[in-house]
Amino acid sequence: MPSEFELINHCFKRPTRHTVLGVGDDGALISPTPGQELVISTDLLVEGTHFLADTNAEDLGWKTLAVNLSDMAAMGAQPRWATLAAVLPAPSFDWIEAFSRGLFDCADHYNIDLIGGDTTRGPRAFCVTIFGEAPPGQALRRNGAKAGDSIWISGQPGRAALGLAHLQRRTTLREPDLAHCLAALHRPQPRIELGLALRGIASAAIDVSDGLLADLGHILEQSNLTARLHIPNLPPTGLARDCWLSGGDDYELLFTAAAELDGAMNALANRLELALTRIGETAAGTPGELILSDDDGELITPARRGYDHFM
Amino acid sequence: MPSEFELINHCFKRPTRHTVLGVGDDGALISPTPGQELVISTDLLVEGTHFLADTNAEDLGWKTLAVNLSDMAAMGAQPRWATLAAVLPAPSFDWIEAFSRGLFDCADHYNIDLIGGDTTRGPRAFCVTIFGEAPPGQALRRNGAKAGDSIWISGQPGRAALGLAHLQRRTTLREPDLAHCLAALHRPQPRIELGLALRGIASAAIDVSDGLLADLGHILEQSNLTARLHIPNLPPTGLARDCWLSGGDDYELLFTAAAELDGAMNALANRLELALTRIGETAAGTPGELILSDDDGELITPARRGYDHFM
Repeated sequence: MPSEFELINHCFKRPTRHTVLGVGDDGALISPTPGQELVISTDLLVEGTHFLADTNAEDLGWKTLAVNLSDMAAMGAQPRWATLAAVLPAPSFDWIEAFSRGLFDCADHYNIDLIGGDTTRGPRAFCVTIFGEAPPGQALRRNGAKAGDSIWISGQPGRAALGLAHLQRRTTLREPDLAHCLAALHRPQPRIELGLALRGIASAAIDVSDGLLADLGHILEQSNLTARLHIPNLPPTGLARDCWLSGGDDYELLFTAAAELDGAMNALANRLELALTRIGETAAGTPGELILSDDDGELITPARRGYDHFM
Repeated sequence: MPSEFELINHCFKRPTRHTVLGVGDDGALISPTPGQELVISTDLLVEGTHFLADTNAEDLGWKTLAVNLSDMAAMGAQPRWATLAAVLPAPSFDWIEAFSRGLFDCADHYNIDLIGGDTTRGPRAFCVTIFGEAPPGQALRRNGAKAGDSIWISGQPGRAALGLAHLQRRTTLREPDLAHCLAALHRPQPRIELGLALRGIASAAIDVSDGLLADLGHILEQSNLTARLHIPNLPPTGLARDCWLSGGDDYELLFTAAAELDGAMNALANRLELALTRIGETAAGTPGELILSDDDGELITPARRGYDHFM
């Protein structure tokens, strides 16, 4: 069995690209870009809550970093560095090596340096802290939406939750939907490019990790607004609709922007080759309230908004 | 039972002192001091491995931040910001409130802003990532020791391990030793001031978290050196000696400095009112080798060097 130090050296120590001192000392050293603000986020993934025990290790390595990158996207930040703390049961060298392969696949794809970490034994869990940069005052926040802004969502929310429902035998998906939903669940693609493009354009942004309605609720509460939603092509009933409205884990970006930018958003969608769907607008009213109607103007009452780790 | 958001708002959201945007968005925003390097470290504390299940929650809050501050001390960094990720079983509001009280006691004492975090349900564990600053090139590393350097340790190593042995009924301590050892175990005092004073003076530094010999081994391996140790007043036998040499969790600083600075070190000890003990010197030789002799020149073979989380 490898020691902690052998494990770190073999699996988690790679050459860095833009770091003064990486893994292996009491701390890492970076030189932040002069004149930029540093954007910092930390996220936990715990077995049984955020991933199933039998999740493929390489996929899990990718996802562990990707969900943190998604927070950088939601802030409009350029991600640059990350640390990883890993709690691992009696270590299987092969498992950890596969996990690190997936993690570095994601790191290489987004040009992230892994600069430090910690490992210990216990029930499997991962904590990534991620660092990005943004020009002062340009990071996207949750509290900047104005009454009358359009509300937008990227991609196709609910796919990851549908993929999970399939794995848990609560539904049966067919190809090609199955492949798309499992890819959304196992290899989420953080919307970094979209986040960067939204600097100076979006009035507020959040990434959908707990569910679209729940995460929209955060923007509305922090911006003191109500929302009127009328979602084009919303699945009419059942699990697919619940997943669209309340399924977490997709890591799409949900954002608001002034209504006069609707045309610019459609142009942006074309340029990024990424669906951007206008799902409603904000309004003055009870902070956090959501009014959702279907194509015929009938009110819809969702089963739940999203996921709370302590409810 | 409070929701995740109520819990964070009540227990972990406090006004910040030197932060652009703190807890409550997808990421925090800080403005690093122009011209400084950023020093980053991340550490895990897992129940059963790093602390006992019945540890006082307030003490544990203090220690969770203090052990990370110790990494900043070992780098010679001025600590400024921290994030906290917490895995908690079915939450007791009182427990978490006491934990946060201890955490903020420590944060206030060292002028740290808590800028972000994550909470989820599961077997109790904490991950802190900490951020400090140091002038370029002045952070203390493990790999800078030169042959002939003196080796120094701050404070009295082994106290925390002795305190733990008492709690586990492997020994019985009497007052005032008991109080000192339990304080070292529950309320470690990171040696920030010492770390800052050692900038430009120490050739290498590490904090003793795994055990003095194990952590000295990291300096020796990374500096390609051997050490000859002759420790004044080392307990002659038994548990007290094992704890001195191999007990972790004290968070004292272990460092090397050129022999001509021995006098300066004694002056520094007086200025900081902190014991600094010269325990030997480095030498050319097999990297990582330790030769330890007692007052009569007899070789000592320690039972073990320290703690490895996977052995």
